[in-house]
Amino acid sequence: MVHGKILRSVYAHARVLKLDTRKAEALPGVVAVLTREDVSKCPLYGAAYKDQSIVAIDRVRYVGDPVAAVAAVDDDTAQEALSLIDVDYEELPAVTSVDEALEPNAPLVHENLGNGEQMGYYYESPPGLAGTNLCYSFQYSKGDIEFGFKKSAYIFENVFTFPRVQHYSMEPHATVAHFHTDQITLWASTQDPFTLRSHLASIFRVPLHKVRVIVHDVGGGYGGKLSIKTEPLAVALAWKARRAVKVVHSVEESFKTVTRHPAKCRVKTGVTRDGILLAQECEIYMDTGAYADAGPRVTQKAGYRAQGPYRIPHTKTTAYTVYTNTVPAGAFRGFGTLQVCWAYESQMNIIAHKLGIDPLKLRLKNLLRKGEQYIPGDTPVDCDLRRGLLRAAKAIGWGQGKTKPFTGKGISCCMKDGGGTYKGSEAIVKMTPDGSVLVLTGTVELGQGAHTALSQIVAEELGIPLDRVLVTQVDTDFTPYDSGTYASSSTVVMGLCVQRAARAVKVQLLRAASKPLQEPINHLILKNGKVCNRKGQSISYRDVITAHLGSKAMNISRGSKGGDLVGRGIYQDKKSKRALLGSPTTFWEISWGAVELEVDPESGGIKIQNYVSIADVGKAIQPRECIGQDEGAVLFGIGHTLMEEMIYEDGQLVNPNLLDYRVPRFSDIPSQSETVLLEDYNGPGPYGAKGIGEGGILPVASAVAEALYNAVGVRILDLPLTPEKVWRAMKEKEGQVS
Amino acid sequence: MVHGKILRSVYAHARVLKLDTRKAEALPGVVAVLTREDVSKCPLYGAAYKDQSIVAIDRVRYVGDPVAAVAAVDDDTAQEALSLIDVDYEELPAVTSVDEALEPNAPLVHENLGNGEQMGYYYESPPGLAGTNLCYSFQYSKGDIEFGFKKSAYIFENVFTFPRVQHYSMEPHATVAHFHTDQITLWASTQDPFTLRSHLASIFRVPLHKVRVIVHDVGGGYGGKLSIKTEPLAVALAWKARRAVKVVHSVEESFKTVTRHPAKCRVKTGVTRDGILLAQECEIYMDTGAYADAGPRVTQKAGYRAQGPYRIPHTKTTAYTVYTNTVPAGAFRGFGTLQVCWAYESQMNIIAHKLGIDPLKLRLKNLLRKGEQYIPGDTPVDCDLRRGLLRAAKAIGWGQGKTKPFTGKGISCCMKDGGGTYKGSEAIVKMTPDGSVLVLTGTVELGQGAHTALSQIVAEELGIPLDRVLVTQVDTDFTPYDSGTYASSSTVVMGLCVQRAARAVKVQLLRAASKPLQEPINHLILKNGKVCNRKGQSISYRDVITAHLGSKAMNISRGSKGGDLVGRGIYQDKKSKRALLGSPTTFWEISWGAVELEVDPESGGIKIQNYVSIADVGKAIQPRECIGQDEGAVLFGIGHTLMEEMIYEDGQLVNPNLLDYRVPRFSDIPSQSETVLLEDYNGPGPYGAKGIGEGGILPVASAVAEALYNAVGVRILDLPLTPEKVWRAMKEKEGQVS
Repeated sequence: MVHGKILRSVYAHARVLKLDTRKAEALPGVVAVLTREDVSKCPLYGAAYKDQSIVAIDRVRYVGDPVAAVAAVDDDTAQEALSLIDVDYEELPAVTSVDEALEPNAPLVHENLGNGEQMGYYYESPPGLAGTNLCYSFQYSKGDIEFGFKKSAYIFENVFTFPRVQHYSMEPHATVAHFHTDQITLWASTQDPFTLRSHLASIFRVPLHKVRVIVHDVGGGYGGKLSIKTEPLAVALAWKARRAVKVVHSVEESFKTVTRHPAKCRVKTGVTRDGILLAQECEIYMDTGAYADAGPRVTQKAGYRAQGPYRIPHTKTTAYTVYTNTVPAGAFRGFGTLQVCWAYESQMNIIAHKLGIDPLKLRLKNLLRKGEQYIPGDTPVDCDLRRGLLRAAKAIGWGQGKTKPFTGKGISCCMKDGGGTYKGSEAIVKMTPDGSVLVLTGTVELGQGAHTALSQIVAEELGIPLDRVLVTQVDTDFTPYDSGTYASSSTVVMGLCVQRAARAVKVQLLRAASKPLQEPINHLILKNGKVCNRKGQSISYRDVITAHLGSKAMNISRGSKGGDLVGRGIYQDKKSKRALLGSPTTFWEISWGAVELEVDPESGGIKIQNYVSIADVGKAIQPRECIGQDEGAVLFGIGHTLMEEMIYEDGQLVNPNLLDYRVPRFSDIPSQSETVLLEDYNGPGPYGAKGIGEGGILPVASAVAEALYNAVGVRILDLPLTPEKVWRAMKEKEGQVS
Repeated sequence: MVHGKILRSVYAHARVLKLDTRKAEALPGVVAVLTREDVSKCPLYGAAYKDQSIVAIDRVRYVGDPVAAVAAVDDDTAQEALSLIDVDYEELPAVTSVDEALEPNAPLVHENLGNGEQMGYYYESPPGLAGTNLCYSFQYSKGDIEFGFKKSAYIFENVFTFPRVQHYSMEPHATVAHFHTDQITLWASTQDPFTLRSHLASIFRVPLHKVRVIVHDVGGGYGGKLSIKTEPLAVALAWKARRAVKVVHSVEESFKTVTRHPAKCRVKTGVTRDGILLAQECEIYMDTGAYADAGPRVTQKAGYRAQGPYRIPHTKTTAYTVYTNTVPAGAFRGFGTLQVCWAYESQMNIIAHKLGIDPLKLRLKNLLRKGEQYIPGDTPVDCDLRRGLLRAAKAIGWGQGKTKPFTGKGISCCMKDGGGTYKGSEAIVKMTPDGSVLVLTGTVELGQGAHTALSQIVAEELGIPLDRVLVTQVDTDFTPYDSGTYASSSTVVMGLCVQRAARAVKVQLLRAASKPLQEPINHLILKNGKVCNRKGQSISYRDVITAHLGSKAMNISRGSKGGDLVGRGIYQDKKSKRALLGSPTTFWEISWGAVELEVDPESGGIKIQNYVSIADVGKAIQPRECIGQDEGAVLFGIGHTLMEEMIYEDGQLVNPNLLDYRVPRFSDIPSQSETVLLEDYNGPGPYGAKGIGEGGILPVASAVAEALYNAVGVRILDLPLTPEKVWRAMKEKEGQVS
């Protein structure tokens, strides 16, 4: 195995004139140098559109865009070789924000936009608008928006902005690729092995069965390891080097690979005199950077979710994806919801204060009820939104007034269609002849605890201790198909698969034990590794498998020592023409946040004193891990609410590292915090479970901004709420007052 | 990963008094030294009996018995460390042949023999006889042997011996073991991954799901890599070294790990005046070396097969397994048949010559007919034995007299129950969304071409080119259960599994295409990756999977881009109480050999001029590989017939290497040779296939010995027919004559 390193563009936008790799190739220890010459015939790729090449072909489009790559015997040699590659650039004018990108006659990030040939796409959306930087747009309306505004007593209009933030997984993107004859083997830190398999087969023009993606435990994903990232480069380098190549990103490189979409949301809301929502118009611009990645899909979901958990008879939503000369933005925990829930929940607070209605009461007036439709054709709301909100409010003593000066409270309620769209998965449960169990699932363990929850479900169904269940490594050659580990879907989607697969094994055990135990199968139960009848007699699974299993009837393969007992379980979301996105949501992921904070009037710094997060889990399969997931989500929320922001200056990303880009530290953790798991058994998953893990992040920003307003009277529409921004707003407000 | 080396006993039999490993442990680069201290609590293990320890506990029982092992950063360091281990032995008297072992008051190889506690066993046979070196015995009789002899006009009695030979796989035994927490992962050169999993789980007291055995292509097996060999030592060393350990045998070490059983067969035959067989008594002694390995099972099969393909109304067979202080003998291509077919076919020739009947005619008088029973309860003979024999005879011009002095011809016909006993297997066929296919099977590719044949069956069933089918690596975590790659079983047993699995996929394709193609499924065919109807319309598999497959009815998991289509196929041998070995044979592996040779009267050297092998293949799935298998088998036969023999002197194995132990070289290949594949579609496998690969080896020795007799008039009952032995026999005959 050799080590790969990537030479990246230092320009935001430039033509690549000449590449001279001779000095790099001559360096002892260098095995291969990959350039556009090698990959110019590979088709373009991308999660939504095919707009990305393995290394730059003619132009670089952002600072960090791969230009060439080196494989060498060690990291240091590869790094040195990069410095020996001469690149002649011709700098081009760049656009590094949505506003710049949408100006008339703005430089174009992709000149061939709208050219179907180069811009093949997977989704139903049309390719972008030729001659512009618009990459995708999504529209939806309900009722009559003009009529709604006409009937409204008050109309509010505000623009909210959301920063560019990075996933910062503890483990950066890492791939080991091997390209032997026409077979590609990848050990990848991916959330999405089967999609990756499919992309690689297309790029390298091999049939799918020649691509094998192996995934061990991954050190954090959060959406940043979905679809396809630097894997094709690793594969191409392995092809050229004729041996396995390991490509591991530095933190800075992961910052230059994928981010969350910075966004601008204009929200215009019409309400009655007593605060009943009548009409709302949302216009959303998502900055997807230099390549679309999942941008169109994220934009679609942002648009779909923009109206929030409220009953609004007249709505109109327009969402745009915009190319800029910045790092590509893709999937990220919350997937488009963050940008819009920040807007709609802040808007609710602004309306409440203007109308003199308590923000809690304003929400209670307008919240959708359980069973009510969000959008026709979609799954009705599957939880009591008011109950959770009241619980959140109560937890921080909402309405009890201030404990101290410069303190304030805020609440928020957010909703996201969970589970992904049109998910399909399968699992295999194999019981070995001693009754221990292997679970084959394409769900990737990212630290979220999916494998623990899935193991628990199997252990429960089969009446065995948890340590008798092992989830195998993910391997597309072997593991049954799964549509990917995203959208908080695993506990529901794969949970149902493993439950069904375990039950298929259970039926085989019961049938085989029925005769020796002399009772019909519905009189038998599985307990402690045994099939038991009502008379207290039992047979161990080992004995069932090795002695009693009639092979043919039981659909089992075995030798003289007993084979493995195999069960399969399948889940498939329903397709529906009535559903706007083609398939009703698997479940609604709903969350409530309540916060109390204190502002330092000297610095503008915010200290969160108490944060209560309420998660609608249905049934917590593993409560400790549900809480861990939710706490993690809240911390992510604190990041983009108070400090995180990737900053571009003159097209250069100035803080792509953990010194200059601040993620929450121990000192930023709320002095007090709590996660409440609401268990209503209202989910479609095993035992009534829902998926969680994204919900907790959603309410943080709007709850904190409201608490800030209640603490010091400033309303900031532009995240993050940095001390400087707060201090300036406070000063400005003093100025106005004085 | 570190490298492991094994310290082996230099005594045939000794007590291990003291082990001092301090100097070895102190050597820089040594990571771990494994001794009996580490493994004394591990249960004993073995293919048939549990009589073997990871390293010697109290005694060593043969030259080569492992005493300790070292793991070090490289091979050289490990090797040096071995030389630094001080072992104090107390030498004990040894037995190195069956005759010595069966003498009254012979030293005992295992003192606790017959002690059920230590000698747990897997098979139905009783443990050996306490106070002797008898390890196992098998008896079978039919009719009334005394009566048969009484009715016979002539009685013949001879003793035939068969040498100890080694498998000599091009790749010696090799294992990489990793023991992490309580999970064992093994990359092993094994033919028998699931059995190995089961043994390792027992030895290291972990549940089966914590043992993962991964098998890549193996460089030759021939039975020498069945069940369990040095793998537990590698695992124990990995456990002690706390990292992965690679243990690769030298050729000499493989010679000291497993061999074929040397044997002595006494055959007593009664015939009528015109050569009709009436009674036959066989007494067989199999030398299993210091540990039983598969010895009892091999002995059982030798006994079962000892009467050959002839109609004999009165038979009695007794077969014994005997412990000696030599290297353990286990499974080896032919599995006990070699030793007995050498005896019964030589006996037929002796009878023929004594009665003045042509050996071909004598056989034709007595051969079982197709459909006739070999032993009641077993599968009737499934092939026309006479036809093959006549074909073989014709191929060398049998009966046409000598072409030259010192030349002679011989023929032979042998039969072995093929496919193993009570085999059970499963396969999974996964069609990816582009119509390419992965085959999950536990069948190990040993160079025999199994994966090619299995791929062809799948390609044929699914109407796709061969290069669209890939057999995955074998991995017990993922691959469905298989009882092992042995007994020429894969084409039949696993062939049926993959055929059934492919057909399960086919049904899903047909069902899904039936509606868009507007025809019922029995009007549709699969061809060139498409489902076609009678009107010439077709849909590609890709389109069927991504567009037309209704998920629920079709038992398919898929996402928006289409999931994998999964089919399972299962095979299970029937159990039968009527069958002596519990299960009728899957098929009969039948082979005929015909040879013409020339003897050098000066040296006694034999040169095979023409060898014709006829194989009853049923249907050759891949004729080229069938021929390759058969040619390889004939060469193995030439080895033990003319030259191969492991020689013990004073308990020491004197030729454990390819300089002193001769395997056939290019110069030993027959001047002319041919393999004829008889295709009668009479097998139980796909398209009428039978298993092959062991048959060709069986007739060689007896055919050659007969040709030798016809060439120079000497009859040798003791293999191999070395020049010296032939020369001495010729001299002796001259002496007798003169």
